[in-house]
Amino acid sequence: MAKAILHEGKQKRILGGHPWIYRTEIKEIRGEFQPGDIVEVYDIRERLIGRGYINPASQISIRIMTRNAEEEINEDFFRRRIQAAWDYRQRVVRESNACRVIFGEADFLPGLIVDKFGDYLAVQTLTLGIEKHKETILKLLQEILKPGGMYERNDVAVRELEGLPLQTGFIGASFDPKVVIKENGLRFVVDLAGGQKTGYFLDQRENRMALQGLVHGGRVLDCFCHTGTFSMYAAKFGAREVLGLDIAAPALEVARANAELNGYGKNCSFKETNSFDELRAMEKAGEKFEVVVLDPPAFTKSKKAVAGAVRGYKEINLRGMKLLPPGGYLVTCSCSYHMKEEMFLEVIAEAGRDAGRQLRLVELRRQAKDHPMLLASPETHYLKCVVLQVW
Amino acid sequence: MAKAILHEGKQKRILGGHPWIYRTEIKEIRGEFQPGDIVEVYDIRERLIGRGYINPASQISIRIMTRNAEEEINEDFFRRRIQAAWDYRQRVVRESNACRVIFGEADFLPGLIVDKFGDYLAVQTLTLGIEKHKETILKLLQEILKPGGMYERNDVAVRELEGLPLQTGFIGASFDPKVVIKENGLRFVVDLAGGQKTGYFLDQRENRMALQGLVHGGRVLDCFCHTGTFSMYAAKFGAREVLGLDIAAPALEVARANAELNGYGKNCSFKETNSFDELRAMEKAGEKFEVVVLDPPAFTKSKKAVAGAVRGYKEINLRGMKLLPPGGYLVTCSCSYHMKEEMFLEVIAEAGRDAGRQLRLVELRRQAKDHPMLLASPETHYLKCVVLQVW
Repeated sequence: MAKAILHEGKQKRILGGHPWIYRTEIKEIRGEFQPGDIVEVYDIRERLIGRGYINPASQISIRIMTRNAEEEINEDFFRRRIQAAWDYRQRVVRESNACRVIFGEADFLPGLIVDKFGDYLAVQTLTLGIEKHKETILKLLQEILKPGGMYERNDVAVRELEGLPLQTGFIGASFDPKVVIKENGLRFVVDLAGGQKTGYFLDQRENRMALQGLVHGGRVLDCFCHTGTFSMYAAKFGAREVLGLDIAAPALEVARANAELNGYGKNCSFKETNSFDELRAMEKAGEKFEVVVLDPPAFTKSKKAVAGAVRGYKEINLRGMKLLPPGGYLVTCSCSYHMKEEMFLEVIAEAGRDAGRQLRLVELRRQAKDHPMLLASPETHYLKCVVLQVW
Repeated sequence: MAKAILHEGKQKRILGGHPWIYRTEIKEIRGEFQPGDIVEVYDIRERLIGRGYINPASQISIRIMTRNAEEEINEDFFRRRIQAAWDYRQRVVRESNACRVIFGEADFLPGLIVDKFGDYLAVQTLTLGIEKHKETILKLLQEILKPGGMYERNDVAVRELEGLPLQTGFIGASFDPKVVIKENGLRFVVDLAGGQKTGYFLDQRENRMALQGLVHGGRVLDCFCHTGTFSMYAAKFGAREVLGLDIAAPALEVARANAELNGYGKNCSFKETNSFDELRAMEKAGEKFEVVVLDPPAFTKSKKAVAGAVRGYKEINLRGMKLLPPGGYLVTCSCSYHMKEEMFLEVIAEAGRDAGRQLRLVELRRQAKDHPMLLASPETHYLKCVVLQVW
């Protein structure tokens, strides 16, 4: 097995629990290896730090798989990791037959994403190093989770950075990729083949529950509503009326189907529109909502674009506040890792000052528990959901 | 009404939503006033910022009551504020007949704390400015909440800084101050007259629920267990065995009574001991627990004592981790406002490094929703509850 020796001091972050080794942190590599192979990682004094897979084509050249000198990366390794991930979900996921079973780095299986939707799995292998073990992983998923079918969703641009082709399709026998999942007593249509990402945003499951109590009897606005999941929860928790906004017609089609499926066709309506424009128009028209939900797509996927993202978040939060009567509730999210919680709260505070409103924090939330975070890896902390009462 | 004029620039924090004006921020006061009176607050250009009560004896000389130029501080003012506070609790408190009804500054009623335990209220008036309105407030609490009785818990040192006497006792007719409350299907003995603070730690209600799923079938250690509330939740959620540690015999007496009351006398035991020493002793003895709860009293009540607090938190978190098998759970809290979330997470991360363990964040929690936080006032954000899986 080849040995990668790190530059002086570069072991610190890794020993602290971060799983990534950047190209520039590697002093030398001794021995032969193929891209994707497992290598041993040493500090400059040649103390073993761990083992991981290497891809010299990626800026993140090595991703640590184990820190245990005794642990080999073989079928049993993957069986233990997948079993531990599934055991954890059985502890933390309740009232749902859908969850993220494997969350890459945070499950000590870098590059691997597995989502469960009822009896079916959606699988992503995002790196060359994990792609090499795909057959073993699929076999073990079958063994441990016994799914009715699996679908590959490797249509993710990040694979190209790893020199991997984009590809999707059934793994083994085909099935109807439109699955109906059950979550907290609601039912949602999930399209494993055609939906965004792996078909559904599982990371907001617990945040949707945060609407309980707040929406009862009120008029609710759900901006960037996608397939209407926050809308369904609002209806379930007694909203008088729910209006969902989204720019994507196909997502709204699913939202309407979800409303019918759950018997909320009468309370919920959906409008194809740019949420930015609509928020402004509704403010002018003097519209009021007791609760406004803002769950936009990531405004920034890079550090450089943060300033623009700040403007975008401030704009929608300011507009959202203006639609609320005193004592109304704002549920505002950011799924961008580059928008840190502190910065996001500052943007919200600024919007509050500009709107002349007093903001009371009801709850500070992150991603659902089936998307755990490595304490040492800020990259795994990405979702913020802030619940405010606006006076 | 007297007018307080702030120094240049000092209006900024107040306009941003912070309710406190420090003595040093006041340029001059025009007109006559008595300590505790309502005064108007102006910026240096004599623009009205709000109205609040003044106490020149306190470092925090003015606390803002309203920012609305039209709003007078009279009985109707207090009726609106108390009603809004109670409306909010009816939305956010579930499965409990006990909650904090009024959380001072965060309910725009600085200095006033009202906790509801079943039919009874515990009341604290912590400042001279709110003490002056006590009769009105008590009358309105009776009118709005219709309690069976009220108890004054003004045995709080902070009152001395305001020049107020320490006093406790029944407000009106006496009643049995030992009340049994119901919380998430559990029952707890609360002593309104003799318990710590107002008798019970309501702020951890939702954090106790975080044990669900994690403790099932496991052995649970509850350090600094006080009256055994985390212990009861652990037993309710299926812990095989629960051991609670606390140094205070009277608290453990209540803990044992709570265990009997809920039918968990057999699963739960409590030991009178210093949790620091016991953690060390158990590590030496090779004891293991699947879940460790650390809910210590505030290690620091001042900025100066933070360094010592950091050592204390690191020590117990390190010891706690050492008692966990790989994959065990640590539920670790800090109720000290001076220990910011970021600093607390850094302390936990350091403990993890020293213990050679990988830390996975399951949840980052704050205080229960009946203890809302003013976004602009960090003083109202005090409780952190971090749930980790320790590998």
